[in-house]
Amino acid sequence: MKEEIQAYHHKVHYYETDQMGIVHHSNYIRWFEEARTDLLEQVGFTYQKMEECGVIIPVIGVNCEYKSMVRFNDIVAILPRVTEFNGVKLTVAYQVIDMATGNLCTIGETKHCFLNSEYKMFRLAKEKPEVYQIFKDLLELGKMAE
Amino acid sequence: MKEEIQAYHHKVHYYETDQMGIVHHSNYIRWFEEARTDLLEQVGFTYQKMEECGVIIPVIGVNCEYKSMVRFNDIVAILPRVTEFNGVKLTVAYQVIDMATGNLCTIGETKHCFLNSEYKMFRLAKEKPEVYQIFKDLLELGKMAE
Amino acid sequence: MKEEIQAYHHKVHYYETDQMGIVHHSNYIRWFEEARTDLLEQVGFTYQKMEECGVIIPVIGVNCEYKSMVRFNDIVAILPRVTEFNGVKLTVAYQVIDMATGNLCTIGETKHCFLNSEYKMFRLAKEKPEVYQIFKDLLELGKMAE
Amino acid sequence: MKEEIQAYHHKVHYYETDQMGIVHHSNYIRWFEEARTDLLEQVGFTYQKMEECGVIIPVIGVNCEYKSMVRFNDIVAILPRVTEFNGVKLTVAYQVIDMATGNLCTIGETKHCFLNSEYKMFRLAKEKPEVYQIFKDLLELGKMAE
Repeated sequence: MKEEIQAYHHKVHYYETDQMGIVHHSNYIRWFEEARTDLLEQVGFTYQKMEECGVIIPVIGVNCEYKSMVRFNDIVAILPRVTEFNGVKLTVAYQVIDMATGNLCTIGETKHCFLNSEYKMFRLAKEKPEVYQIFKDLLELGKMAE
Repeated sequence: MKEEIQAYHHKVHYYETDQMGIVHHSNYIRWFEEARTDLLEQVGFTYQKMEECGVIIPVIGVNCEYKSMVRFNDIVAILPRVTEFNGVKLTVAYQVIDMATGNLCTIGETKHCFLNSEYKMFRLAKEKPEVYQIFKDLLELGKMAE
Repeated sequence: MKEEIQAYHHKVHYYETDQMGIVHHSNYIRWFEEARTDLLEQVGFTYQKMEECGVIIPVIGVNCEYKSMVRFNDIVAILPRVTEFNGVKLTVAYQVIDMATGNLCTIGETKHCFLNSEYKMFRLAKEKPEVYQIFKDLLELGKMAE
Repeated sequence: MKEEIQAYHHKVHYYETDQMGIVHHSNYIRWFEEARTDLLEQVGFTYQKMEECGVIIPVIGVNCEYKSMVRFNDIVAILPRVTEFNGVKLTVAYQVIDMATGNLCTIGETKHCFLNSEYKMFRLAKEKPEVYQIFKDLLELGKMAE
């Protein structure tokens, strides 16, 4: 089991700004996806592996709270953390931190379920125990990072 | 005062899909913005007017719950509704409905505050009573639509 | 055969702007797609029909020339026109016109080929004569609109 | 003067795919912007510096030719190269290369002019000789990389 999760870094692109001169709020949802993909890769659960396993993990909910603004060329660290997992549902929490100031800019969460390759909900623990274990481990890592 | 809010319609663009063959979840946040802009225009509070008034209404929070999938070329109705307003904070709730089936696909909310042209928080009721009244009326309309 | 192509209209969304206060240049490419989809629907060649026919029409090239700026809430008319078609390759040209001023803001082109459902290039005239005829007609309409 | 331009790397995000299972063609235009920003930073001409100088470099044209498909999680190298510069107009060419295969996936160009802080066209050589020199050097580097 991995001992620590690395933050994911994103440098803000010009096309992510809007006419208020800041990052458009919809882009944070996309950054969460980038950070989540990176988190799963850190524990060896790449998208390719996910497809081979026949596991689909759709987003069923998202929330985001904007605390301070992020601008073009800013570098942010995004810290994803599994906060809930019971084999059926999954919650990942995110902190977005401005690397220049250390400010916490945004917090958010995404909620997920698990579908098999026929797009049916199923119990990971029973049918994909190795995938179940990955998320159990991520939940442990998430608790340690609290 | 307007008597009823019209739904905003959006036809799904190809570029809004992802490789799962459905609309990428981040786009709903953008549709909320489209519907909110349209809602404000329905009561005469256009962006141009907002700028003239020197009122900025940033998004400070968003949440979204995905219930069923929306696909390319689907037409959705988005029903925005002011659910909270106290002169300092504003909440707008959204329902996304598949026009072909009548299914409720997505629900969500955005939260906002009010800034003056110097990007400072201020009390609408006192400093911009005419804008305050617009949102009071929208809150009334929102209650009626519950 | 349809006698005239209708322009496609797009009202600029806030999220399409960038920090220069204008529409980000990448979005025009997306508007071309919107207008092209609409053009094909006008002649009855919906995406659903395209899929039933087993015809895929990928974009293999794009160009765009920006003449004047478009801003939030502006309404633009996009006029797509088939300018080249020989059964193997297709060119669609676009004019983006500001509805308030009549100004020509942007011109562009997309280039396409035709693939069958196995992602192989093929000759439309021979294998899908009814689809071939649709684009022949669109080429005629395009010439008339010159 | 810098002796060699480094390629810019981009790892494809899930949200950049479309329902064909490949990167949506509009995103390459955004990657060009990422690579161009990076190129200018490599020679010390950051966005901050650009603003301090009062120089605006809008995109006035773009073209792109898609040769092979790029997919989720692929890593591409984008090689930007100044191919034309005369003090009034600027052309940057791009090659997008799949890092796994070495394949040239996409080629493209963006065309730019130079505006001063009042959004007027002006002659760099006369009014901003230090900025003029940066692009002269980039043109030299671009020729060497041909």
